[in-house]
Amino acid sequence: MVFSSKLIEDAVTEFAKLPGIGKKTALRMVLQLLKMDEGRVDAFTNAVSRMRHEVKFCHTCHNVSDGEVCAICASPGRNKSQVCIVENIRDVIAIESTQQYNGLYHVLGGIISPLDGIGPEQLNIATLQQRVSEAGVSELIMALSPNIEGDTTVFYISRMMKDKNVLITTIARGIAFGGELEYADELTLAKSIAKRLPVENYVNTR
Amino acid sequence: MVFSSKLIEDAVTEFAKLPGIGKKTALRMVLQLLKMDEGRVDAFTNAVSRMRHEVKFCHTCHNVSDGEVCAICASPGRNKSQVCIVENIRDVIAIESTQQYNGLYHVLGGIISPLDGIGPEQLNIATLQQRVSEAGVSELIMALSPNIEGDTTVFYISRMMKDKNVLITTIARGIAFGGELEYADELTLAKSIAKRLPVENYVNTR
Repeated sequence: MVFSSKLIEDAVTEFAKLPGIGKKTALRMVLQLLKMDEGRVDAFTNAVSRMRHEVKFCHTCHNVSDGEVCAICASPGRNKSQVCIVENIRDVIAIESTQQYNGLYHVLGGIISPLDGIGPEQLNIATLQQRVSEAGVSELIMALSPNIEGDTTVFYISRMMKDKNVLITTIARGIAFGGELEYADELTLAKSIAKRLPVENYVNTR
Repeated sequence: MVFSSKLIEDAVTEFAKLPGIGKKTALRMVLQLLKMDEGRVDAFTNAVSRMRHEVKFCHTCHNVSDGEVCAICASPGRNKSQVCIVENIRDVIAIESTQQYNGLYHVLGGIISPLDGIGPEQLNIATLQQRVSEAGVSELIMALSPNIEGDTTVFYISRMMKDKNVLITTIARGIAFGGELEYADELTLAKSIAKRLPVENYVNTR
């Protein structure tokens, strides 16, 4: 792409560094910003700049936070005996958006993946151990990806918590609501038959 | 989507204002920026901010420019007797990227569209008339969209230039290179047969 303005070219190059943004999409965004009022563009750059410079990570659960402790950990209305273990911040947002979970979180910052050189010491696992020992945590809910790395992480944390008096659960796997049986993968379908529930239970949980 | 950080939420909201960016894509970009070094994020926001505040529009052709006159109009190597008339800046970038055109441009800033309330006076047409009268322009190449609005604009400009000694041409329409005949729309196919070229001509222009 040939630009007649270095300023435009620089802005396009910066946008194209973001994930999933090619040069053409970057150009579309830059031209849109060029059309917007200067004040609105300032609002955009300020929001991005403040986000990067001022966002903190919660000392307790490692979630993104505006202060030392995140709004979820600080909330008096949440059940502090339940901790949901997730891989990253996006998972927290996804679970929070269901508005069905009232416990706390613990963001690992990844999952154990020896092939990628990620072991337990690269993750926020030591602070989890400390948290379970010190605070009155009675249940750890594992909400990790259903793959080998996720299973390894679940197994590692379960073994670590063996001598602690804490219940370890994982989120249910099965056919998604609205999912067509015929398009489900074999493993999920097989598991969902093996782990079938009595109908009254199904109706209650729906 | 529920966020535990207002800073993240604000940045996501700002990104989601850009065209074609939903909340999920916006979040992915924000989390990517959060992972990047502060210096690189500053480079991003500075490039966007400078682009918006410092980009100028060329006084001659209305293309984006870093100064009063754009690099294309200022270039001594370009053929100043040819002016290609385009709708917007994106079209200039597309034609420049072919590296096959060596004349100048004139960016209209839109096309005549009475339904959208865009008449000739909303476009950069007066300056075009002045340009043709003053500078030694011998050819106007119309590179506008092949629809009613584009045709109306071509017709309007042609009539305006009637008593000026200037050749008016339009870019060729036809089946695209690499296009399959069977998938071409009927109008394009019909026109490409009506405007067929002798084979030696075809070979030369390829």
